[in-house]
Amino acid sequence: MRTVVVTDPPRADPGDAETLGGFGVATVHEALGRVGYLGPELRPAWPGARIGGTAVTVLCWPGDNLMIHVGVEQCRPGDVLVVATNSPSTDGLFGELFATALAHRGVRGVVLGSGVRDVAELREMGFPAWSRAVSAQGSVKATAGAVNVPVVLGGQTVAPGDVVLADDDGVMVVPRADVARALIASQARVDKEAASRAAFQRGELGLDRYGLRDQLPDFGIEYLPYEKWAEEP
Amino acid sequence: MRTVVVTDPPRADPGDAETLGGFGVATVHEALGRVGYLGPELRPAWPGARIGGTAVTVLCWPGDNLMIHVGVEQCRPGDVLVVATNSPSTDGLFGELFATALAHRGVRGVVLGSGVRDVAELREMGFPAWSRAVSAQGSVKATAGAVNVPVVLGGQTVAPGDVVLADDDGVMVVPRADVARALIASQARVDKEAASRAAFQRGELGLDRYGLRDQLPDFGIEYLPYEKWAEEP
Amino acid sequence: MRTVVVTDPPRADPGDAETLGGFGVATVHEALGRVGYLGPELRPAWPGARIGGTAVTVLCWPGDNLMIHVGVEQCRPGDVLVVATNSPSTDGLFGELFATALAHRGVRGVVLGSGVRDVAELREMGFPAWSRAVSAQGSVKATAGAVNVPVVLGGQTVAPGDVVLADDDGVMVVPRADVARALIASQARVDKEAASRAAFQRGELGLDRYGLRDQLPDFGIEYLPYEKWAEEP
Amino acid sequence: MRTVVVTDPPRADPGDAETLGGFGVATVHEALGRVGYLGPELRPAWPGARIGGTAVTVLCWPGDNLMIHVGVEQCRPGDVLVVATNSPSTDGLFGELFATALAHRGVRGVVLGSGVRDVAELREMGFPAWSRAVSAQGSVKATAGAVNVPVVLGGQTVAPGDVVLADDDGVMVVPRADVARALIASQARVDKEAASRAAFQRGELGLDRYGLRDQLPDFGIEYLPYEKWAEEP
Amino acid sequence: MRTVVVTDPPRADPGDAETLGGFGVATVHEALGRVGYLGPELRPAWPGARIGGTAVTVLCWPGDNLMIHVGVEQCRPGDVLVVATNSPSTDGLFGELFATALAHRGVRGVVLGSGVRDVAELREMGFPAWSRAVSAQGSVKATAGAVNVPVVLGGQTVAPGDVVLADDDGVMVVPRADVARALIASQARVDKEAASRAAFQRGELGLDRYGLRDQLPDFGIEYLPYEKWAEEP
Amino acid sequence: MRTVVVTDPPRADPGDAETLGGFGVATVHEALGRVGYLGPELRPAWPGARIGGTAVTVLCWPGDNLMIHVGVEQCRPGDVLVVATNSPSTDGLFGELFATALAHRGVRGVVLGSGVRDVAELREMGFPAWSRAVSAQGSVKATAGAVNVPVVLGGQTVAPGDVVLADDDGVMVVPRADVARALIASQARVDKEAASRAAFQRGELGLDRYGLRDQLPDFGIEYLPYEKWAEEP
Repeated sequence: MRTVVVTDPPRADPGDAETLGGFGVATVHEALGRVGYLGPELRPAWPGARIGGTAVTVLCWPGDNLMIHVGVEQCRPGDVLVVATNSPSTDGLFGELFATALAHRGVRGVVLGSGVRDVAELREMGFPAWSRAVSAQGSVKATAGAVNVPVVLGGQTVAPGDVVLADDDGVMVVPRADVARALIASQARVDKEAASRAAFQRGELGLDRYGLRDQLPDFGIEYLPYEKWAEEP
Repeated sequence: MRTVVVTDPPRADPGDAETLGGFGVATVHEALGRVGYLGPELRPAWPGARIGGTAVTVLCWPGDNLMIHVGVEQCRPGDVLVVATNSPSTDGLFGELFATALAHRGVRGVVLGSGVRDVAELREMGFPAWSRAVSAQGSVKATAGAVNVPVVLGGQTVAPGDVVLADDDGVMVVPRADVARALIASQARVDKEAASRAAFQRGELGLDRYGLRDQLPDFGIEYLPYEKWAEEP
Repeated sequence: MRTVVVTDPPRADPGDAETLGGFGVATVHEALGRVGYLGPELRPAWPGARIGGTAVTVLCWPGDNLMIHVGVEQCRPGDVLVVATNSPSTDGLFGELFATALAHRGVRGVVLGSGVRDVAELREMGFPAWSRAVSAQGSVKATAGAVNVPVVLGGQTVAPGDVVLADDDGVMVVPRADVARALIASQARVDKEAASRAAFQRGELGLDRYGLRDQLPDFGIEYLPYEKWAEEP
Repeated sequence: MRTVVVTDPPRADPGDAETLGGFGVATVHEALGRVGYLGPELRPAWPGARIGGTAVTVLCWPGDNLMIHVGVEQCRPGDVLVVATNSPSTDGLFGELFATALAHRGVRGVVLGSGVRDVAELREMGFPAWSRAVSAQGSVKATAGAVNVPVVLGGQTVAPGDVVLADDDGVMVVPRADVARALIASQARVDKEAASRAAFQRGELGLDRYGLRDQLPDFGIEYLPYEKWAEEP
Repeated sequence: MRTVVVTDPPRADPGDAETLGGFGVATVHEALGRVGYLGPELRPAWPGARIGGTAVTVLCWPGDNLMIHVGVEQCRPGDVLVVATNSPSTDGLFGELFATALAHRGVRGVVLGSGVRDVAELREMGFPAWSRAVSAQGSVKATAGAVNVPVVLGGQTVAPGDVVLADDDGVMVVPRADVARALIASQARVDKEAASRAAFQRGELGLDRYGLRDQLPDFGIEYLPYEKWAEEP
Repeated sequence: MRTVVVTDPPRADPGDAETLGGFGVATVHEALGRVGYLGPELRPAWPGARIGGTAVTVLCWPGDNLMIHVGVEQCRPGDVLVVATNSPSTDGLFGELFATALAHRGVRGVVLGSGVRDVAELREMGFPAWSRAVSAQGSVKATAGAVNVPVVLGGQTVAPGDVVLADDDGVMVVPRADVARALIASQARVDKEAASRAAFQRGELGLDRYGLRDQLPDFGIEYLPYEKWAEEP
């Protein structure tokens, strides 16, 4: 691993990141063609937060949060801190003191591939955090890593400056180059969903609304009344 | 897999299902002889819901929610939608739009062996959902499955028309043929538990109340004061 | 396994246990040199509780809660019941009736290596519980175990009379012999954290506060502006 | 749970079971329409065995092998013993002594949802076993269960007398009523696979052999030379 | 954690350890009353080894094998190296070079709560290893731990000088104080198993041999011919 | 996801890939600074294979192997097929027929983030495969994906043309741009390891060879004879 701190990477527009955050992870994920989701293992430390920001990335050794200290300094208002470890770890690399420092810098939240702690305090502060685990297990500051290099988290590559979105459904990344497209596609999807929602509230069926009913025979799907089904061998 | 939609299966009485739901999963599970529990992996998307309803079952291909669209049409008031996949998957096959359609039809909740998404919206709507995962990962509509055939979920067979109960302790199934017995046995258990609760509030011990104390020697259990224990080699 | 019930083991002071509980798991764990944490798999049944008490330990056969009945009688005000099974199990060995009996005896909470049930009722009663799983699966009373012998839970040895702390970050054990040291070290850490918190609120960086900046070259960490980084091969 | 031992259930033909076993799990699973597989968690205790037999089913309490003792007596030549527990357990319920007794009765192997032990001895004896775990953890004989009732294992229902197949790819069940169809469909698939194998050895592509190439545009799949791909934004 | 290297702890007799190793893990575990097993997650790096030796214990930081270097020097002929990490880690802390050094010192094998690597080379050398994972992920030497203090691994406490046994069924610990008892009880069990094996080879049933048949009615177990079972509702 | 097949990506030299494969995963991983390992979850279908080749990447929908059929055509001698799914899946997407087709094209092996089947046949053919699971569960050909785009597998980004190495220790990726450096650094490491191996065979200690002994006091490590340790409180 190259032990480097990359300074001032270009970032997506923080306002765009906030707008995408407002759409929510499930919507933007669908709008972009079902890509970029960091998977079901990253869960919020407390429910109800919904954020979008620009990634500052940190790569740590397991059980060691030295590089988070280094990474804090690289953060600006509108950022989201994204922390990966270079092998699996559930240790609580991040807690309330880091959150205090990040809140001062206008950082919108944190995403960790390892664990988080002080979750009662984070909830009270309203500082949003997503992680693979909650763990009080503390860390040393003994081994170098990297800041603002691309990291892999939850099966996705997150580059510094990318947009990271997170809510109760989990976390996703929108590459910087795809932000403009994501904004347009997400708004379109929201409009379409609003129309569908209204239709479903009136009792319309997805089978009809999405034109699936006519395709069912092609899928080989047959309908059978229960009585007929039950008497078959 | 036979790609069939079985229509109008006989259902347990929805009122009975609601009554059983009110007893709660742990109580009915005990009352029936500790059977029917779908295991600790199925968790509520939000805490506090408690439901009982009649199962409409759906079998999907992983990453594919085509058959949920087909299944919605088969639902009636008092039903619970039960979705299995034919191999392990955590993808978010179900979200707020489906919940809107089901709520319109009077469906009481959903149970999925895979993932759910839009959990903030589900919580807000008050639509109850239990699943193995929360995941924003979206799905295609490309491969046929089945509706209202018996499915296996969490180590239990759920047949269409069976009663499904769910609360913060998880999910259980009561086969249609066992509903009458479950109602009687659950009420008896509730009464017995109320008496035990009152006794425990007065300080009685389970050791005495359940007649265990006299059996302890048969179990080979001996009592030792700490001092004697500590000085043994 | 020796099927023994050890009576009246010496306990740490319940007031000291309460004081340590107030400091919280993450703080005491750090103060003692990052030891004693029972790992990220033990989670609270409901959020927000924070306790400290003296351990009464129970060792059960999987799927069998006979020994919890035996253990209840050994509990005193200020205790925490700690239940291990001698092989992995997620069954719900503990529920609301046990909690009622323990509350009557002044017990502060329960920690289980297996599952808990009646979590809605426990939340309503305000009885704190931590466990590896939530499970409605019930148990028999058929096989002997032990009470107040040292047990291993979450990678830690818990002896009867040790202090057990638990909050939203998980569970930890403080051996009876370390309580005095833990009180002093935790208070010192709380004071130090308060100073750090104030500093971070003013914008000071951990890099400077903890003297890490000067060590960065020794760690082999270099800083690179993004433009230079991007043009390297 | 009803604590019953069902005697002399009708069984599929043991010769048919052996024939299906020879086809292998992956082949029969495909031939029947991709159903009946017990999932990737059931692994062989030693590699290389391939069996097919008729199920004798046993339902045990976790950590308790009383019912296996009862089940042995119900076994005949050509059977496969199938053991489920009514909640998750990895304990080693089965070992070399049971295998000795089963081998004497002409039983072809064992499948357990829990653990197996004495694997070195089983390998030496050549007695085939599939399980979720290898575990030396021993068991008691203290709680009743059932023999020859339908059990759920690995997401499938196994009824007594069904055919169970197992090899290095895992375990599957063929319901008794589907055996005739499985024999025909599996032979057809083996013939088709032999032709495909020969074609692939000559260099033919699946894309062409299965007529997929013409469908690619309908799937929305486009081909791009690397140079063009690389220069796109 | 106290960063200490305890030198020359008293050890169980290496000959006794070897004898116990020969009995095998499952046998000794049963003989001692089903205690001491380190669980199904510790698996051999290659099949067929069976060892018994005296524990030299090492406690490492995750991702860091500094203390294994320190521990090697504390090893003597007849020892088994036992390595725990103080939070969960799968990294490959141990490989062929360490095995070479240990083989030179007459060490009989290694047990790790984390990962092992160079497994092809270990198999070729015939150096036995048990671990939670196989992982090529390498480690640093940056953080202190301890040698020859009691460690917890797989839910058991291993003290330096205890006997550690390992084979294809996993790993177990016999506390130094229990070795004499284990030798006698294991030999008795081996004799009893030999008699049972011979009986089972002649066709005797465990039901009869262990006197279970007469107890079945007390367990509430009833026998039902299939025809009667099938016609019940 | 863009449903594209990128043709003829530039590849690393197949001879270089083979040379790196010969060094083994653990060695190259260390030589490059402990990067590129795909983690402990990817295991060989059969032990003993050791390969290095150039990546052809495939991205599939879970439970769907359409794109593997497309990918086969893009393979050349010296390649390794690398298959990811865009959400977690254990299904057996790859078996003996695919292996036959790949062997004909001179492909050296396959790496899958999902499952593999026909493992007995693969072992017999000598076709190497690494995967997260063994599963007989079959797949459909219904949903488009991509070929030769960068994929994420086991926490690493694999680009087409990168070198992929695999052996009993798992799988790693060497980016195309790092191959030259990897060759030099790996040879240097092999030489250094040979010297260390010889030294350890003579009884030298890593403590001395790596200059660690002098650093122990700086790490805060103290040595204590057992007698002194035992008498401390």
